[in-house]
Amino acid sequence: MTNWERNIRKVVPYTPGEQPNQPDMIKLNTNENPYPPAPKVQQVLKEMDAGDLRLYPDPSAGALVKAIADYYGLKEDQVFVGVGSDDVLAMSFLTFFNGEKPVLFPDITYSFYDVWAELFRIPYERPALDDSFHIKKEDYFKENGGIIFPNPNAPTGVELPLQDIEEILKANPGSVVIVDEAYIDFGAHSALPLISKYDNLLVVQTFSKSRSMAGMRIGFACGNPVLIKYLNDVKYSFNSYTMNRTSLAAGVAAIGDRDYFEDTCQKIMDTREWTQKELTVLGFTFQDSKANFIFASHKTCPAKQIFEALRAKHIYVRYFAKPRIDNYLRITIGTREEMEQLIRFLKDYLA
Amino acid sequence: MTNWERNIRKVVPYTPGEQPNQPDMIKLNTNENPYPPAPKVQQVLKEMDAGDLRLYPDPSAGALVKAIADYYGLKEDQVFVGVGSDDVLAMSFLTFFNGEKPVLFPDITYSFYDVWAELFRIPYERPALDDSFHIKKEDYFKENGGIIFPNPNAPTGVELPLQDIEEILKANPGSVVIVDEAYIDFGAHSALPLISKYDNLLVVQTFSKSRSMAGMRIGFACGNPVLIKYLNDVKYSFNSYTMNRTSLAAGVAAIGDRDYFEDTCQKIMDTREWTQKELTVLGFTFQDSKANFIFASHKTCPAKQIFEALRAKHIYVRYFAKPRIDNYLRITIGTREEMEQLIRFLKDYLA
Repeated sequence: MTNWERNIRKVVPYTPGEQPNQPDMIKLNTNENPYPPAPKVQQVLKEMDAGDLRLYPDPSAGALVKAIADYYGLKEDQVFVGVGSDDVLAMSFLTFFNGEKPVLFPDITYSFYDVWAELFRIPYERPALDDSFHIKKEDYFKENGGIIFPNPNAPTGVELPLQDIEEILKANPGSVVIVDEAYIDFGAHSALPLISKYDNLLVVQTFSKSRSMAGMRIGFACGNPVLIKYLNDVKYSFNSYTMNRTSLAAGVAAIGDRDYFEDTCQKIMDTREWTQKELTVLGFTFQDSKANFIFASHKTCPAKQIFEALRAKHIYVRYFAKPRIDNYLRITIGTREEMEQLIRFLKDYLA
Repeated sequence: MTNWERNIRKVVPYTPGEQPNQPDMIKLNTNENPYPPAPKVQQVLKEMDAGDLRLYPDPSAGALVKAIADYYGLKEDQVFVGVGSDDVLAMSFLTFFNGEKPVLFPDITYSFYDVWAELFRIPYERPALDDSFHIKKEDYFKENGGIIFPNPNAPTGVELPLQDIEEILKANPGSVVIVDEAYIDFGAHSALPLISKYDNLLVVQTFSKSRSMAGMRIGFACGNPVLIKYLNDVKYSFNSYTMNRTSLAAGVAAIGDRDYFEDTCQKIMDTREWTQKELTVLGFTFQDSKANFIFASHKTCPAKQIFEALRAKHIYVRYFAKPRIDNYLRITIGTREEMEQLIRFLKDYLA
């Protein structure tokens, strides 16, 4: 090791799902939306004056913050935006989790949480989900330096009932509790109505899934104005201008179209229900999903084998070689036609 | 203070220059380029398929990394990209400055450096520029946990000769040395040719100034592949997908047009030389600038007074109420016409 390497922060980074790019592929591996963004997004891009790009964007992302606040019936000082919910969550770890006691999150969950904790040298503990992959609320009734979990959880798709979340909040007046609602719009119940009641609650959402804009990188957090102010202080200490002009304009356009949003979410939920039925017939088991994916295990055929067989046909799903979940596939809900192709393949393969 | 506030990272954020928005304004306060980006950027935005936004961008930003590497005659593993050079620098502080010894940067310099150091709790020292605002290379010949300075320096515009940079590199084989070249394209000499010789050198540049794309948020770092790998590990531990699809496409389009880039830089340098002459006639003094701004002081009229008089006329320049520089104005070079308006106003005002 050279001399200057001694002062370097050495980390094991998060591994994102692969981004294959075959023309014939069916991409069900990174929970993207199979439908395009709201039509106005195309119009906004087309009409954008490139000349304006010479100027910095609004560092406060005011127009987008206002659009999100209006949509959810919040005030602007209750909303923070960032470069995807990963950026929002990274800033949140850096801002809120600075205690001596461990931060708590489930053993099976979004695999970025421990990466952020390691990056920022935050102690953490991972209470185990029960055998049916449900969060046990009692695990979060102990001393901690903060709490975070996704709802619905990833990669399980299981929803934690709102009353359980409220019990966790009540038990933890001394901690910031972050509910990561990346997948909330596919049938689960948002904790947003609780932010006026619990000043230690931060709810994080994203435009990447339900709003079909993973490629634009927009995430946001809602919480009481004191939490949002601290988060903005850290953001302004990291990078004043995180949201570029195209994100701001496209984000405002996307959130303005409530009908389109509700239609596409409903289509995905309908396709999910259909797919769950078909998978059951084929011998798969899974917990009821409230997300835009199904986390499924086959009764006889190992997940890794199915994963590789699908991959050979350019059907991409996600497989995690990790304890407790290495016999599961996380299958994103695509269009009805894509799911029909998947089911047809599985019928043949498992026959 | 509520209970949960105890674990919060409390910081004093960087204050970006104000972003006024009057139709008649002359905006010379945040070192933006007065010319639009390369024409192909407009075309790329117009032709972008919003449908693609449903998919995540390439997390490695491969196309943009390759375009930058090709432009500068580097290999792809020598280039890192981020959301403006602020993002690149924030990641660099987090990655490279983890020693016990203080990081060194000048007392008068980009005012984000101490903000990042405070955010990440990095010890630092600020050797003073000499009375003519030049970096004294000898100040960097002592034990340290890393070195960073802009070249040309901001807000002074003064260039540090390449042989002085090389002496600093030679004296510091045990430290990562970051040369922040945000303003390098306006007549100063880049340290890029030194990266093959010094494996501890990281050179950071941006599309925000010379490439007219402050609104798009693109910055990059060049260095030996080991440095770049460590930087990517931290980036992938923070946010896998920092660069959105419009940034990637527009960035590739912008860097492809070398003629346009060289023309606009030359126009700005010509306007700078003209403005320097006119300011001298009006009784201003300043060091010779190699940036797209002039850092000037008037012989008799206080800077703050001129700043406010300009502001009242919607001519925005930057004023820093800080020790040693509180009698200076940082004036961005706009179009020739904008600078003529500025000079006309000053002629009247100072008469």
